[in-house]
Amino acid sequence: MSILAVGSVAFDTIATPSGRVEDMLGGSATYFSLAASYFTEVRIVAVVGDDFTADHERVLTGRGVDTRGIQRAKGKTFRWGGQYLDNLNEAKTDFTELNVFESFQPHIPAEYMDSLYLFLGNIHPSLQAAVRLEMDRVRLTGGDTMNFWITGSLKELTETLKLINVLLINDGEAKMLAGERSLPRAARKVLSMGPQALVIKHGEYGATIFFREGAFGIGSHPFRAPALPLEVVDPTGAGDSFAGGFMGYIASQGQLNREVLKRALFYGGVMGSFAVERFGTERLQKLTRQKIDARFQVFRELTHLE
Amino acid sequence: MSILAVGSVAFDTIATPSGRVEDMLGGSATYFSLAASYFTEVRIVAVVGDDFTADHERVLTGRGVDTRGIQRAKGKTFRWGGQYLDNLNEAKTDFTELNVFESFQPHIPAEYMDSLYLFLGNIHPSLQAAVRLEMDRVRLTGGDTMNFWITGSLKELTETLKLINVLLINDGEAKMLAGERSLPRAARKVLSMGPQALVIKHGEYGATIFFREGAFGIGSHPFRAPALPLEVVDPTGAGDSFAGGFMGYIASQGQLNREVLKRALFYGGVMGSFAVERFGTERLQKLTRQKIDARFQVFRELTHLE
Repeated sequence: MSILAVGSVAFDTIATPSGRVEDMLGGSATYFSLAASYFTEVRIVAVVGDDFTADHERVLTGRGVDTRGIQRAKGKTFRWGGQYLDNLNEAKTDFTELNVFESFQPHIPAEYMDSLYLFLGNIHPSLQAAVRLEMDRVRLTGGDTMNFWITGSLKELTETLKLINVLLINDGEAKMLAGERSLPRAARKVLSMGPQALVIKHGEYGATIFFREGAFGIGSHPFRAPALPLEVVDPTGAGDSFAGGFMGYIASQGQLNREVLKRALFYGGVMGSFAVERFGTERLQKLTRQKIDARFQVFRELTHLE
Repeated sequence: MSILAVGSVAFDTIATPSGRVEDMLGGSATYFSLAASYFTEVRIVAVVGDDFTADHERVLTGRGVDTRGIQRAKGKTFRWGGQYLDNLNEAKTDFTELNVFESFQPHIPAEYMDSLYLFLGNIHPSLQAAVRLEMDRVRLTGGDTMNFWITGSLKELTETLKLINVLLINDGEAKMLAGERSLPRAARKVLSMGPQALVIKHGEYGATIFFREGAFGIGSHPFRAPALPLEVVDPTGAGDSFAGGFMGYIASQGQLNREVLKRALFYGGVMGSFAVERFGTERLQKLTRQKIDARFQVFRELTHLE
């Protein structure tokens, strides 16, 4: 079933110990859509500038992504520059040029209104809320956020959290959002703010999903998907690719229960692990479901005792 | 089968967000021995000062640990002070008073010479090597080390690594020892230095075991044991308790193969998770094998897909 992704399209300039690339196609909606495209139909809403070419668009349409929701504005596309030279787990931002992204107002095309699944990428929480409220038929909403909104727009974010079913954030964001240094306590607090489930991404160590008591099944035991220790070339987009694998798999299943969410967590880890093996979206453009399922199996065996 | 642990006995002064304790019994050999005591017979070699009382010794003998190898020296026992106020994952050292530990020369009692398993806690690599070379019947040697020896005594450490079958260190130590920022590359390099297996401890994220090609079984696939997100009261001793659960389980099995080492990795995680739930060794003194196996089951289910 179709999933709608709202977020950013960007051109990234990135330096890692493996090399340096300039103005490479990226952005949360791009990584999410490519990762999700291996599981289900994907529709994208984002804004780009004059410098977004037909070749850039073909990266998405080549994977069957519906790009009718990409808005074109006068000016340059959002640009981000960062480096991971000292620490592959944390980006050091060199520059952020919002450009056309600064005045992004998501318009949902009429053809997208029947989407059953929704992913709200890391944009202003008020825009996230507006999109969610516009969509009538959505069954499950996944959402992301970041430190910038937690510190600067907490009131709006608090309202948006009531509209999100599954929040996907990392350890630091969860602790900051909850004002708690202990991860299980932070998780409980974030779940009390609205979401039925919380996915905390641990980078190279995998991810944990916490459930509100009784949500999607019985009890409140967390579940963890490990990640294989791999050669990381470029960590950019790992979190959005994780979200794409996670939400894409859920949208492909047609039912919502713990077992589906647990498998989705593994698929999230799998797509994140592929994303980081090459610069930018290169690896995500040329996968097959067979390769994805083979790695899913490796991830299962990684923690499987006889 | 008996396991011999050589390491430190210490009195720790620790501050964490949960509180502060002074001169609490600790040290690598103490945590290791208590954790291993739930699986097999444990013998300890360490040095203490005049301030080590009969009550302190009863903490160990109460768990059946053979303390005949505890050497008494004139002076005070090793003291360490540290805090985890900003970060539960990393200790900030306030003070280190080596005291009698400074001139520690491990003497192995004759009654210990038939030990089949050996754990070399974090002491000078030359002392580790001397102990190993003295023991004729050892089937498997586990060892720990730290940044201090990696930077200050690399030559001695390199020799010792050739005598250690399973090295247990954390992420930062593995990367420093290998001079590599990528974990899988660091693991390969450390394995080329001697050990047949390398356990890298990830703190609250569990641990990964890497095998040298063909060691203890077929292939070289790594295996990961996840860890449950738990309320951490005091992280001190987590790594040594992990090692105690890991080595203790192995010593209890009588055979050495990948499946045993994988289960041992889970038991390591289980014992580490108990250790951090209370200050010092409190939790490790009053467990039962039933409680341990119940948590082992929880850890299995944590990543288990139907």
